[in-house]
Amino acid sequence: MAEGSRKLAHGARRIDFATDPSRYRHWKLAVDGAVATLTMDVDEKGGLYEGYDLKLNSYDLGVDIELADAMQRLRFEHPGVKVVLLRSGKPRVFCAGANIRMLAGAAHADKVNFCKFTNETRNGIEDSSEFSGQKTIAVVTGSCAGGGYELALAADHIMLVDDGSSTVALPELPLLAVLPGTGGLTRVTDKRKVRRDHADVFCTIEEGIKGKRAVEWRLVDEIVPNTRLEDVVRQRAAEFAKKSDRPADAQGISLTPLKRAFTDNGIAYSTLAVDYNRAGRIATITLRGPETPPPADAKALLAQGAGFWPLRLARELDDAILDLRTNEPEIAVIVFRSAGDPAQVLAYDAFLDANTANWLAREIRLYWKRVLKRVDLTSRSLATIVAPGSCFAGTLAELIFAADRSYMLIGQLGGSNLPPATIALSNANFGPYPMSNGITRLQSRFLDDKESLDRARGKIGEFLDAAAAEEAGLVTFAFDDIDWDDEIRIFLEERASFSPDGLTGMEANLRFGGPETMESKIFARLTAWQNWIFQRPNAVGEEGALRRYGSGQKPAFDMKRV
Amino acid sequence: MAEGSRKLAHGARRIDFATDPSRYRHWKLAVDGAVATLTMDVDEKGGLYEGYDLKLNSYDLGVDIELADAMQRLRFEHPGVKVVLLRSGKPRVFCAGANIRMLAGAAHADKVNFCKFTNETRNGIEDSSEFSGQKTIAVVTGSCAGGGYELALAADHIMLVDDGSSTVALPELPLLAVLPGTGGLTRVTDKRKVRRDHADVFCTIEEGIKGKRAVEWRLVDEIVPNTRLEDVVRQRAAEFAKKSDRPADAQGISLTPLKRAFTDNGIAYSTLAVDYNRAGRIATITLRGPETPPPADAKALLAQGAGFWPLRLARELDDAILDLRTNEPEIAVIVFRSAGDPAQVLAYDAFLDANTANWLAREIRLYWKRVLKRVDLTSRSLATIVAPGSCFAGTLAELIFAADRSYMLIGQLGGSNLPPATIALSNANFGPYPMSNGITRLQSRFLDDKESLDRARGKIGEFLDAAAAEEAGLVTFAFDDIDWDDEIRIFLEERASFSPDGLTGMEANLRFGGPETMESKIFARLTAWQNWIFQRPNAVGEEGALRRYGSGQKPAFDMKRV
Repeated sequence: MAEGSRKLAHGARRIDFATDPSRYRHWKLAVDGAVATLTMDVDEKGGLYEGYDLKLNSYDLGVDIELADAMQRLRFEHPGVKVVLLRSGKPRVFCAGANIRMLAGAAHADKVNFCKFTNETRNGIEDSSEFSGQKTIAVVTGSCAGGGYELALAADHIMLVDDGSSTVALPELPLLAVLPGTGGLTRVTDKRKVRRDHADVFCTIEEGIKGKRAVEWRLVDEIVPNTRLEDVVRQRAAEFAKKSDRPADAQGISLTPLKRAFTDNGIAYSTLAVDYNRAGRIATITLRGPETPPPADAKALLAQGAGFWPLRLARELDDAILDLRTNEPEIAVIVFRSAGDPAQVLAYDAFLDANTANWLAREIRLYWKRVLKRVDLTSRSLATIVAPGSCFAGTLAELIFAADRSYMLIGQLGGSNLPPATIALSNANFGPYPMSNGITRLQSRFLDDKESLDRARGKIGEFLDAAAAEEAGLVTFAFDDIDWDDEIRIFLEERASFSPDGLTGMEANLRFGGPETMESKIFARLTAWQNWIFQRPNAVGEEGALRRYGSGQKPAFDMKRV
Repeated sequence: MAEGSRKLAHGARRIDFATDPSRYRHWKLAVDGAVATLTMDVDEKGGLYEGYDLKLNSYDLGVDIELADAMQRLRFEHPGVKVVLLRSGKPRVFCAGANIRMLAGAAHADKVNFCKFTNETRNGIEDSSEFSGQKTIAVVTGSCAGGGYELALAADHIMLVDDGSSTVALPELPLLAVLPGTGGLTRVTDKRKVRRDHADVFCTIEEGIKGKRAVEWRLVDEIVPNTRLEDVVRQRAAEFAKKSDRPADAQGISLTPLKRAFTDNGIAYSTLAVDYNRAGRIATITLRGPETPPPADAKALLAQGAGFWPLRLARELDDAILDLRTNEPEIAVIVFRSAGDPAQVLAYDAFLDANTANWLAREIRLYWKRVLKRVDLTSRSLATIVAPGSCFAGTLAELIFAADRSYMLIGQLGGSNLPPATIALSNANFGPYPMSNGITRLQSRFLDDKESLDRARGKIGEFLDAAAAEEAGLVTFAFDDIDWDDEIRIFLEERASFSPDGLTGMEANLRFGGPETMESKIFARLTAWQNWIFQRPNAVGEEGALRRYGSGQKPAFDMKRV
């Protein structure tokens, strides 16, 4: 099948990221006290696109959407779960990784977006362990190859059954001429500290590694005889549960279905609206501030549950970004706007600050962190427009700092009686939402410039007008009514005229000045190389390894190194 | 002209990296006491390939080979030079960057290798400033665009003449749909700390930025009126000279022409031999240890000059690697071998250790650091074979740790009376040769594994046989005579059968576990994205921006973001 000619299965027109356990086709979620078991049992006929079967627990984006949903629900709906066991529901195979026929037939953009989402999901698993006390153990029975092993790598602990045949493997290079690009290469060296020459050997053999050598090379944490497997699983689960600070007796909240209505030109959510101007290649996302003050206390927060404004907005923004990335490939620019009372937004930030000891408040902050990272990693130009009536304060001001550029109106707009726009900072801009490279958006903005950062910190809680915001370095440009519309129009037209690829590369660099972390290396060093390989004829050409896999024909390579 | 159909000019068959000032066509080097002036005055007709003119001080690889040579000679031949002024010999233009017609017609591999070398040269300029006390000032007169500004970015100080027309610019994205990929994006954010939204604006305008805004945005360090330019240049040179610790009265050494003889299947140098097995896609580089003990003292070192074994070997290895990268694209694996007395190699390491206060000894260590970085960044599989008669000790042992894999023979080879091979470590393995990511090769090998690193340090000076080397984790595999030939043959055949692109991506990841630096980000985040763009039709296709530039036709873009 030619690259890029896939059709969505069952006549679907869009890929939907919203799901719930009642609709899962590929995973089973069972909760037993502090331990949840997430069992991968992929429905071969449940592929997202036509044209391939998901054999041997191989996966496509649809399988990963369910995994991401399950991990999200474990955090919010099951606060008492301290350990998640990742297991296979199939005999002799843990997971065969990303489906190869799916990959071979996918358009370049679909490959890239598939990998990005699966990477975000795996990073989320690690975030859950590090910040939310929800540990993950991969119980590997059968062959665990490619993306299957990359999933295991996201766990805190990897157990490999010692049955003479179960193996872990990263056979992408020898079999398919691509990389273990869902974090595999990076996690092998940087997380598991596999010696780099051992990693070289491991990544060039098709058949994988089992038994003692898998432990000696740090590929797994332990091997366990089949007969003792369930005992050891229970024991490890108990040990890891002890390391968790999740509450033992908390009641979860229900992540109720998103309220959204699709129209031809956008999506209406309860707290935000997406408007697609496809001719202009612009998506405008307007976030609405809270309509009521924050709840009185943590108990009232729990009662609001998924209705609590910051959580509702985070879920809706997350869905909107994912929808746009996947289903609207020609949109060039995302314009963030907002409407509401900035003082109320600050009040919600203060409420979350005051309730960090509450598990739900903590989860909501962590979720905002992940959503904002998703924004940073979105391959569209980002612009934030700060106009009268907007409420870019605290958490929402992060969208100014996430943007490639921001525009703020000086004074009022002719014909409008809305007071001049302001920006306000809160503690939320100085810590809880680091980017994937480990620093905050303001630290990134004022890289190694402590003076500017301290000055901004000194303005927490002030409502800064355009002149003050520009003076503090918080917005790119401030224009008055006379230039406003023209400047924004010219910028948007210009942006839409540039090469989308050039913009992707430029933004992936300028957004991430300063340090790198394992997480950011996965998106930079690893993903950028993988995307290059996804363009190379040796992988994706007619005679390339990805296209010829399973055909009985060997790939034909251009042997020039570059 | 179609991509990749270029011919070398003047009937040349290979690109030669060896040159000297008497042969420069594009640069003039003038030394006046502590200040050298390096003037770019590109000969339009002096392109390395046929089919383009190097107008407006634009450059190709040939121009950069001369720049690299000049910087190298300034370090060794002019130890008294404390400040280098980078200037233009042309009116109204400082440098227009990489020649666009050259780029548009270059094969993908040539684009990639061109960028790699120019990046290494610019990193070398910064290394010279940081470690060797040779500061660089860019005196920008006229337009300074793209690679021209990227060259200026490598300087310690950028002066821009304030004449109403001189500008700095990174117009790659709007003009050519590619990135400022020779460090530009990374240095703008990470070195000069240009605010990321300002960088976004700067990198999307064709016309560049001049005057006060260039200073306010940190793009240059100062603007200077034309009338005062020479005075201020003198003043700044004097100021930067004061910060230098280079010796005031030292005599340089002469970097005499390399002794090398090309044959059909290799190159014979004075201290190493390169053998090309093109059918097997293997290059074997055999390094020869010193034939005499180190000189008695620093004075004797200076008398030996370029004949001093470590310097001779570094220059020859550097040349061999560059030749191979550029002229032998189908070689898959570089096999490092060595022959000599490991005790003598250690004696030379000890000599350099004992003479760190001497400027030449310091330069030689710094040069080895750069050569070894060049090895790390070479896009070929690297294997080091430790066999009887070899001398992989200290500095030379770095080639074991730079390799993707190493093989060491246990005992003797049948039919040979050479004693079993040994490896020895020295201080040189624990500090002076960091990789581009800032850590040593042993730190990278034992990532966050202080115990293994300390154990290795404890073995400094010991001659470790295969069993001891394997036990200490210093080699990948140790085999005895029975398996030796087969294991190596199978590995080399296997390596030559894999996709060259897959190996490039894999090795670029596994070699650089752990931290990143600005330098390593340039090769990872920035270069990997640029290489991706260099494959994308929006840049390099028939209707792409790079191909259509100057044709009067606008590029036609596929507007999908990925």
